[in-house]
Amino acid sequence: MENKATSTKEVIYLKIAKLLEKQIKSNVLRVGEKLPSIREVSRKRGVSISTAQAAYWELERKKLIFSKPKSGYFVNNWNKHKHRLPETSNPNLETIDKQKSDLLINIYDTIADKNIVQFSLGIPSPDYLPIAKLNKSVVRATRELKNCGVEYENIEGNALLRRHIAKWAINYNLNVNENDVITTTGCINAVAYCLMAVAKSGDVVAVESPAYYGILQLCQSLGLKILELPTNPATGIDLEALEMVLKNYKIKACILISNMNNPLGYSMPDENKKTVVELITKYSVPLIEDDIYGELYFESKRPDTCKTYDTEGMVMLCNSFSKTLAPGYRVGWIIPGKFREKILKLKSINTISVTALTHQAVADFLDSERYENHLRKLRNALHANSLLFQKTISEHFPADIKLSQPKGGFFLWLELHEGINTLEIYYEAIKHNISITPGKMFTLQDQFSNCMRLSYGLNWEERTEKSLIFLGQIITKQYNRLKN
Amino acid sequence: MENKATSTKEVIYLKIAKLLEKQIKSNVLRVGEKLPSIREVSRKRGVSISTAQAAYWELERKKLIFSKPKSGYFVNNWNKHKHRLPETSNPNLETIDKQKSDLLINIYDTIADKNIVQFSLGIPSPDYLPIAKLNKSVVRATRELKNCGVEYENIEGNALLRRHIAKWAINYNLNVNENDVITTTGCINAVAYCLMAVAKSGDVVAVESPAYYGILQLCQSLGLKILELPTNPATGIDLEALEMVLKNYKIKACILISNMNNPLGYSMPDENKKTVVELITKYSVPLIEDDIYGELYFESKRPDTCKTYDTEGMVMLCNSFSKTLAPGYRVGWIIPGKFREKILKLKSINTISVTALTHQAVADFLDSERYENHLRKLRNALHANSLLFQKTISEHFPADIKLSQPKGGFFLWLELHEGINTLEIYYEAIKHNISITPGKMFTLQDQFSNCMRLSYGLNWEERTEKSLIFLGQIITKQYNRLKN
Repeated sequence: MENKATSTKEVIYLKIAKLLEKQIKSNVLRVGEKLPSIREVSRKRGVSISTAQAAYWELERKKLIFSKPKSGYFVNNWNKHKHRLPETSNPNLETIDKQKSDLLINIYDTIADKNIVQFSLGIPSPDYLPIAKLNKSVVRATRELKNCGVEYENIEGNALLRRHIAKWAINYNLNVNENDVITTTGCINAVAYCLMAVAKSGDVVAVESPAYYGILQLCQSLGLKILELPTNPATGIDLEALEMVLKNYKIKACILISNMNNPLGYSMPDENKKTVVELITKYSVPLIEDDIYGELYFESKRPDTCKTYDTEGMVMLCNSFSKTLAPGYRVGWIIPGKFREKILKLKSINTISVTALTHQAVADFLDSERYENHLRKLRNALHANSLLFQKTISEHFPADIKLSQPKGGFFLWLELHEGINTLEIYYEAIKHNISITPGKMFTLQDQFSNCMRLSYGLNWEERTEKSLIFLGQIITKQYNRLKN
Repeated sequence: MENKATSTKEVIYLKIAKLLEKQIKSNVLRVGEKLPSIREVSRKRGVSISTAQAAYWELERKKLIFSKPKSGYFVNNWNKHKHRLPETSNPNLETIDKQKSDLLINIYDTIADKNIVQFSLGIPSPDYLPIAKLNKSVVRATRELKNCGVEYENIEGNALLRRHIAKWAINYNLNVNENDVITTTGCINAVAYCLMAVAKSGDVVAVESPAYYGILQLCQSLGLKILELPTNPATGIDLEALEMVLKNYKIKACILISNMNNPLGYSMPDENKKTVVELITKYSVPLIEDDIYGELYFESKRPDTCKTYDTEGMVMLCNSFSKTLAPGYRVGWIIPGKFREKILKLKSINTISVTALTHQAVADFLDSERYENHLRKLRNALHANSLLFQKTISEHFPADIKLSQPKGGFFLWLELHEGINTLEIYYEAIKHNISITPGKMFTLQDQFSNCMRLSYGLNWEERTEKSLIFLGQIITKQYNRLKN
């Protein structure tokens, strides 16, 4: 009897799994979409919780679905074409200070143009942001702040905000207090102060390759020379190359985006982070760590930062709420280690005060469970988008492209056939109101001209899907031209 | 009969004038205070309008009162001791790049400390700001902005705000449109972009002497060398020295605060402004004009800017609402002339976007008569304060000090006996919770150690008066020590 009952149960759970599999394969349940909860399946199908659970385990085993803590089960990118990862980059180890502004497309020219499908901007769709709640926080901020925020803040920045940032740091195993935090006008402003604190015009800084173009431009505008390091699309900068460079070059700072890297999407393994910190400490070269995507992980837990392993105060950790709450609020911060006094001075000289009102509004928003709940939804939405993008790319882009596998954040990095120039693709796509970011923007050297970065931060809707498919057609045309 | 009537009328108006004079001399009517309107005097005294007017003319003739257009009559600083003006400065014409940070007091350390009487900060007391109306503008801004201001702005900045700034420019006889305006995070951020657009580390820039310490610090943090020009406390930089320097030194930019200068309080005569622009154009040296106090004039009309006379786009005009509306909102702008593209690029690299919400709030506030009405009140309050400060200084400070005569803005510049070190006075005063700005902060050279700047931007109340009198006592003690 027991055997029979077990076997019936087996049949039932397999039946349910089969049914869901059909729905998944026929796109009734879309890639990235959330499945009904186990409790719901149990109730609706009239089966036990354990039977429903068994059905989901079966689907998970088949890689058709995956689970996320506190969020439930989601449809996986089940038919994914196994694109290879791009190769480890191989830049020349030379310091470069050439101005490349002519080559650069100004990505921000069209920043507010709603006619353009922005595969180029690394910002979340406003649909993903808690706008109504933030509005309430703004109104409360006018009440809470002395003189309603018309006055300058003190130089370190909003105390409540700094306390929340310090509390939140425990999630990446960093133990700091509010005095270890300095607020800034967004993250790039934070990185600028860190650079100004440790390097001056003519000095050399080391970056990843590809590197976020905003950091390259910032370094150039400060007159710094740039040394690009070989970078693996799954694990980040090559540690041997880093040590060689720290040993043999006069480097004034390293700048890394160690988590959910822009543009490659990797998170550096914790072991590597530890090693990086040991190396920069050994050679007394400060590390500027840009952790702006740190909260937007797709896996089960928040990755650590390099700062987590920093015992000597050599790491300046930069971040902001621009990728998670409100880019237009301009709320960023630095955990500056031993460079605190220098950075405070630079802040007082260069901006005196940040915008008191929006900083208090964010502090107010953080003063509850709202942020964690919002982040969970945002991560799920971005994760779903990333899967939908990967699926669509598999179906509509040439089969031999190489594709990154983002651990979170906003970006996919595509490496096309080496005969393809993505700057041409950019110009072709923008004619059709589609904006991409050509690979050339991520280096000062002669590389990545066949690469591009795509952002999946925008809302997945018909127009998004069609534009992505259309982009695939543009690329396919270029491939066909190559063959002829 | 007619003669008699006239003579009676004479007697009456003289009687009224006498009465008011008594009230003024006995401080019933306080220096800077607004007098009843002529209509009010006429009604209350039961005399004709012309009689009341005659009484006021009599008082004006005696310099007991003065009139302001659209505002009425105010009590003058009637018993003012005729302090001499400070001398024209005589800096060495040498380029200096030494770091003086150790010498500098960080004025912003105590920026939010309400226990300190801030004679050091050049910001208006919150009592003078239209806080309730600004709060309403903030709420409207969340409604007016697409997605309530959580998004990045386009790169030039808020269009409505730029339009209002362009409209407003007609007041200083400048004809521009919204495309000629770029918004920034306050005025010092504007000056920073202008400097970065035309000068790089190691270059020389020319400034006034004394010069606003914020500009000196900014130049130093950008690695620039500084050349200080002889400056007259009534008319500004010496034009001959300017030409000599433009001709013989390799100057990359001049920086001037041409109106209501910080710290000297002068407005450069229009003729001088014209000549400055001719000179810098002749020698192709860009001028960065900081006009942040431009709306805070005490005389009957808004002074022109150098930019007003700029036909070749060589002047970059910088300004903000930090001195007139809300320092904490961080709303500034540049009218960049021919350097527009460079400055837009610098803005996109260094901050991407300003704070959308507060910029829209200010745009909303400007969208009515409110700003003009507010400015009128603010100017009157600051003018009254400046007179009260001068009166109190005349009565309680040593008689031989030299004192500037501000045309507007926030500042008095005091030159004490050359044996006095105002840094010592600073340290003594701060013990008693009084903050002043020592003269040494306004130069990189060995000068102004016997000078100080006082701000009269704070509300005039018992504590203000007592603190100013106490400061006079500290200084008098130092004088007495000199004699012994």
